[in-house]
Amino acid sequence: MERDGLPKEENRFHREEDLLRRVQSLLHPPEPHVVTGIGDDCAVLALPGAVDHLLVSTDLLLEHIHFEVTHQTPRQLGYKALAVNLSDLAAMGAEPLAVFVSLCLPRRCAASDIEALYAGMEELALSVGTSIVGGDTSASADSLMLSLTVLGLAPPAAVVRRSGAREGDRLFVTGTLGDAAAGLEFLQRQGMEPRAAGQPSSPPPGCPADAFDNLVARFRLPRPRLPEGRWLARGGFASAMLDLSDGISTDLHRLCEASRVGARLVLHDLPRSAALGAAAAFLHHGTEHYTLHGGEDYELLVAVPAGRRETLLAQWPFRDTLLTEIGWVAPPPQGVKLVTPAEREEVLPPGGFDHFATG
Amino acid sequence: MERDGLPKEENRFHREEDLLRRVQSLLHPPEPHVVTGIGDDCAVLALPGAVDHLLVSTDLLLEHIHFEVTHQTPRQLGYKALAVNLSDLAAMGAEPLAVFVSLCLPRRCAASDIEALYAGMEELALSVGTSIVGGDTSASADSLMLSLTVLGLAPPAAVVRRSGAREGDRLFVTGTLGDAAAGLEFLQRQGMEPRAAGQPSSPPPGCPADAFDNLVARFRLPRPRLPEGRWLARGGFASAMLDLSDGISTDLHRLCEASRVGARLVLHDLPRSAALGAAAAFLHHGTEHYTLHGGEDYELLVAVPAGRRETLLAQWPFRDTLLTEIGWVAPPPQGVKLVTPAEREEVLPPGGFDHFATG
Repeated sequence: MERDGLPKEENRFHREEDLLRRVQSLLHPPEPHVVTGIGDDCAVLALPGAVDHLLVSTDLLLEHIHFEVTHQTPRQLGYKALAVNLSDLAAMGAEPLAVFVSLCLPRRCAASDIEALYAGMEELALSVGTSIVGGDTSASADSLMLSLTVLGLAPPAAVVRRSGAREGDRLFVTGTLGDAAAGLEFLQRQGMEPRAAGQPSSPPPGCPADAFDNLVARFRLPRPRLPEGRWLARGGFASAMLDLSDGISTDLHRLCEASRVGARLVLHDLPRSAALGAAAAFLHHGTEHYTLHGGEDYELLVAVPAGRRETLLAQWPFRDTLLTEIGWVAPPPQGVKLVTPAEREEVLPPGGFDHFATG
Repeated sequence: MERDGLPKEENRFHREEDLLRRVQSLLHPPEPHVVTGIGDDCAVLALPGAVDHLLVSTDLLLEHIHFEVTHQTPRQLGYKALAVNLSDLAAMGAEPLAVFVSLCLPRRCAASDIEALYAGMEELALSVGTSIVGGDTSASADSLMLSLTVLGLAPPAAVVRRSGAREGDRLFVTGTLGDAAAGLEFLQRQGMEPRAAGQPSSPPPGCPADAFDNLVARFRLPRPRLPEGRWLARGGFASAMLDLSDGISTDLHRLCEASRVGARLVLHDLPRSAALGAAAAFLHHGTEHYTLHGGEDYELLVAVPAGRRETLLAQWPFRDTLLTEIGWVAPPPQGVKLVTPAEREEVLPPGGFDHFATG
């Protein structure tokens, strides 16, 4: 391993999915108790005698790669790190069981910052009925890093994978799309002006303050859709599901690839918040850019068997959570396409974020 | 959180155990299914209907803090990262169930290095009957970081904690002590001369090559004592157990603190390898320094009820693994003391490694 310099072009991974594919090809087939291995939101394990399957998800959050400490308070960062992880459980219909937190802490982290990180995680853990029961900490030379692992439980028949979507399924999404990306854009623009960490952020001149606050809050404090995911899974409404971490244009491709299907996404059906509309004039791109490609919404994308569509719409019990039909699952050769307002079909390339991509 | 500079002296944690204690005080009491939470080698969870308890351990390994890439090949580093984690399962008597691997990869890591890291983990996983079933990867600005989580199973009656040692128990240790620390010292000395990574290491002039090779191998490729830990736990021989990661002078204090007991360690009974003896003249300190304070041996320290001692010695089935009696558990007020060859008792302060310690 080199201490300095970069390896040769042909000896590098340029996309996280290339690395993932290569790693999978190196590993021996898992034991029979591994129901689902690498490639879904969670691994799924069957334990002798256990009523439920055990689901496990692990996520890294690295300073300068996944977050900047200037974009939120340490407490908000702790909350979000856990939310992102719990969102993977939500996407498979599981109930959280336990949380493990490992932190690499640079010396510039004050004791009060570290306490605030844990307080943010603790707040969310308590509110969803779980707790932090282990982990590890280390000093770090430079960057702050959080590595979280969450365990969850789900009845074997109600575990929803990415791979179950079938031709004719309807595509639904919870909540609204693009808010977090718009909120992040505002914070990034402010980050270019010199200001101390934690200083309250303020909207660009003319932008309505409540719209700004809503978008920034969607970025800082995503709500993992645990009750919604569980209800969809246990009610037999979801043939496939995942959580939107990198933008629907990217994540829909992942669902289609895992399920070996195509899809149609109806552009003007993508749910847009009032806040995104109100702040539109103050953003760099049109709102479609955010709803299509914006990451970190952590909403659920669900494929629903056509025969369950009416019951789903009639029985959806979450008054505070939008549920919107946004397209359908197509036969594999048709690929992933966007239906534009003029009823034209355009190829939809993944447009979201790949932190692994190198120049 | 500051972007630059250090927080004030009084707003910093100076020992990892202070941080751990503070974090524990912030967390709400875990749910009833959490049998053992923060503070032992693994967390222990009871799942509805499951025959066994679920054990979970997670470890961080950070470049420049826990390892240097020049001290071993990427394949050896992968092997060791998993060995260290599995050693925590061994210390509680568990059987490995699944492994989760998260990596932060700086751009200087070649694809072939990353593959070698996984190949090293894969080799060990396969040899102990488990597999890598999930994880996460991220680009990293600077350092290589491995965050591993292992799951294991153990019958509820055979889970051994740190806290079960009782006055009169005999203290035993597997294998020999101090070899890894001596091996590391040789590698560190070579690290000060300019050499390329991966270049074969060679003994100091005059030092027997096989002794050198043995010590370096003990540092690079520790063998997690899974069969030994399981046998000790299931045979009812272990009232308390932990794995020696930071040196027996430090880890014995941990066992005594968790069990609220004192202990006597008989200095001349500490098992020393032939290799350490043969290399002694080429090391910076006397061999006692390594056997007492040397970290990273990953041997098991076991408290054995006095009444089980004879049976243990008669039945120990591992011909290739030494088992040595090294002391006994004393009443709490007597503290942790070292019995020297002159039969004097000296206070034994923790002398091992705390990577969190700051100046």
